[in-house]
Amino acid sequence: MTTWVDVPADSEFGLSNLPYGVFSRAGHAPRVGVRIGDHVLDVSEVTRIGRDEVGVGDGPDLTAAWEQPSLNAFLQLGRPAWTTAREWLTEVLSNPVHEKRTRPHLVPLADVAMHLPIEVADYVDFYASEHHASNIGRIFRPDSEPLTPNWKHLPIGYHGRSGTVVVSGTDVVRPSGQRKAPSEAEPTFGPSVKLDIEAELGFVVGGSSQIGAPVSVRQAADEHLFGVVLLNDWSARDIQAWEYVPLGPFLGKSFATSISPWVVTTDALAAARVSLPGQDPEPLPYLRGGAGSADGDDPAYGLDIHYEVVWNGTVVSRPEYRDMYWSPAQMLAHLTVNGASIRSGDLFGSGTISGADPATRGSFLELTWNGTEPLTLDDGSSRTFIEDGDTLVLRAWAPGADGERIGLGEVTGTVAPAR
Amino acid sequence: MTTWVDVPADSEFGLSNLPYGVFSRAGHAPRVGVRIGDHVLDVSEVTRIGRDEVGVGDGPDLTAAWEQPSLNAFLQLGRPAWTTAREWLTEVLSNPVHEKRTRPHLVPLADVAMHLPIEVADYVDFYASEHHASNIGRIFRPDSEPLTPNWKHLPIGYHGRSGTVVVSGTDVVRPSGQRKAPSEAEPTFGPSVKLDIEAELGFVVGGSSQIGAPVSVRQAADEHLFGVVLLNDWSARDIQAWEYVPLGPFLGKSFATSISPWVVTTDALAAARVSLPGQDPEPLPYLRGGAGSADGDDPAYGLDIHYEVVWNGTVVSRPEYRDMYWSPAQMLAHLTVNGASIRSGDLFGSGTISGADPATRGSFLELTWNGTEPLTLDDGSSRTFIEDGDTLVLRAWAPGADGERIGLGEVTGTVAPAR
Repeated sequence: MTTWVDVPADSEFGLSNLPYGVFSRAGHAPRVGVRIGDHVLDVSEVTRIGRDEVGVGDGPDLTAAWEQPSLNAFLQLGRPAWTTAREWLTEVLSNPVHEKRTRPHLVPLADVAMHLPIEVADYVDFYASEHHASNIGRIFRPDSEPLTPNWKHLPIGYHGRSGTVVVSGTDVVRPSGQRKAPSEAEPTFGPSVKLDIEAELGFVVGGSSQIGAPVSVRQAADEHLFGVVLLNDWSARDIQAWEYVPLGPFLGKSFATSISPWVVTTDALAAARVSLPGQDPEPLPYLRGGAGSADGDDPAYGLDIHYEVVWNGTVVSRPEYRDMYWSPAQMLAHLTVNGASIRSGDLFGSGTISGADPATRGSFLELTWNGTEPLTLDDGSSRTFIEDGDTLVLRAWAPGADGERIGLGEVTGTVAPAR
Repeated sequence: MTTWVDVPADSEFGLSNLPYGVFSRAGHAPRVGVRIGDHVLDVSEVTRIGRDEVGVGDGPDLTAAWEQPSLNAFLQLGRPAWTTAREWLTEVLSNPVHEKRTRPHLVPLADVAMHLPIEVADYVDFYASEHHASNIGRIFRPDSEPLTPNWKHLPIGYHGRSGTVVVSGTDVVRPSGQRKAPSEAEPTFGPSVKLDIEAELGFVVGGSSQIGAPVSVRQAADEHLFGVVLLNDWSARDIQAWEYVPLGPFLGKSFATSISPWVVTTDALAAARVSLPGQDPEPLPYLRGGAGSADGDDPAYGLDIHYEVVWNGTVVSRPEYRDMYWSPAQMLAHLTVNGASIRSGDLFGSGTISGADPATRGSFLELTWNGTEPLTLDDGSSRTFIEDGDTLVLRAWAPGADGERIGLGEVTGTVAPAR
């Protein structure tokens, strides 16, 4: 199927992608838009003019949901509405009969500002890469086994700060805090000297559940995993190392978490579903994908997403999401197995994406082995951790059904000096 | 000063208290109310009739803020509005000229339902009792020093789940999850067999800060600490023990956190301010109260609040908040020192309130020493951890300026069987 929109041949945002975001034009309030090529479709305007023609009047009220300054209302409508919306968008953008009415509502990307796509409800960060967890264990706990005994039995996670999730392009102020090297007698205070990134995938949750009622792996995949964003879990390793025992990371992480502006739906990623690398021991029953596995419809799927980590223009790593040990649906099922409820706008991160190959590590802590093995950038400069003024970008894409690429776009941030 | 309202002589909710909550009458939407004696004052209605008489028309728009189903809009108005509101409420409820107009808007407590008073933005749980942290260390990490090396240098905290903060009276479903005793080879799944409470004080944050800009101890105390609630941090110790290394508590806590419905303001607690028990070593400068200390106006104050922990009607412990090591303003300053922003509706817990005296311990893990020293209730039954059908209540009060009590009310919850 093709679109009447003029989409560049090499675009990763063709008709099979159609990610959602929140945009504004000068003088207009932010509202939901859908990306096609290098344009944003002003979808609530199009539903308004197109109700008779494409029949959305009989379905969920997408106009009301899309007029909002976040995706949360649309997320709350649930899977049937998401499917209706995708079918309608595909029709509007492919059938030439809609072109005349719709074209006035295509806005060039260059003319819009992008905003945080969701009002983040609860934010949880997981730790789903075996290679990342092992590397961190070797660096932070050299006298112990790299993986803690629980690691292969459950997807370890912790809650992060919702209020400091920011959209791509937001500057990140270098955090200050306490740190103490093992060789020092007392902690000192000052700007972090080990500022790092973590290349992650963020999962946007739609629908909601009742407190006390767990969500199964199947329900997680079918009803609640709306889409994904690129997520950079900025980390101050020196602050984190001193604070995190016994209650986990806090100020080493909570100063900023950046996400990409376009939420790529799990529907658009259907062709990117892959089997997990393998789980041994077999997880407890509540974490198993179940009967769907035999026919290729395992809800505990992995995803084939190719990342680039770019430091001041130099690609320094190429993480592969397919290396992750735990499935997104397993993470969400685990998060709720104690009866914790979920809400539209919940966001969870995969944890750093690192593979066995050192060239696929998703943090500088690992890539420079805690600063002992510097990287050289294309401009000849050397880096261990992030310096003021540095710009960090994560980019990614996934395979589509017909050989095309489904772009996840990018998440970028420049580090400003400590205040 | 006295009120024309008929307040019982032994009431802890006299004119010097005036806590805020969110209430509803049958057939009405929830909105902000203020408790006086055994009544709720329907404050947005009173502002509407009383604008000319008491002059709120010249100040912040309290009517609009109080018509909301949460305190968040009122919290966002900031300290000057909170002061104006308290002065206005005191005038309305003490000067008999206001009685005739105001009395129709006093609703008996028995006729209302209470709701969650705030829409919780970010929820953080601290760990500010030295005795609690030491006891937990002895129980969970018997081969190590009870306190981790960082404990006296910074108020340790972690993010909890905002979406599962519930109002007093909400049943709590026993959580299920993974647990593994050290003696067992593999984890098993099932209902928690070590369900516990933590008696805490919750701090409600008002106003907001910009990302990248730390909030000082002085600013925290003067501008952002709006008030307190009783907080029960329900904890599944078996789930927690298996999951919490290395990233901290997650499912052992996230199934439910109960708070009391009435937010007692820090203004009402002015006479309950006390010095901390003493901090050695002296904390880093950003955690010090500073010059205010000499004249008794130290922003790094403690609070004299007396708790009762009640298990099926039996008082099993009497924690004293004045035993806490870290000040609430220090906790909030620490939370932001890395540049993390705060929002109205943020909530942070003190951590379990436990003193040196075993009769003042705030969790059953400590009171029964991990189940090895059972408690006997008044009905003759024995308890280690919580059984299905048990009702747990935290009650507390603080001294007022003239010998009266400032009640914090209670937070209660009954445990329902696992599903």
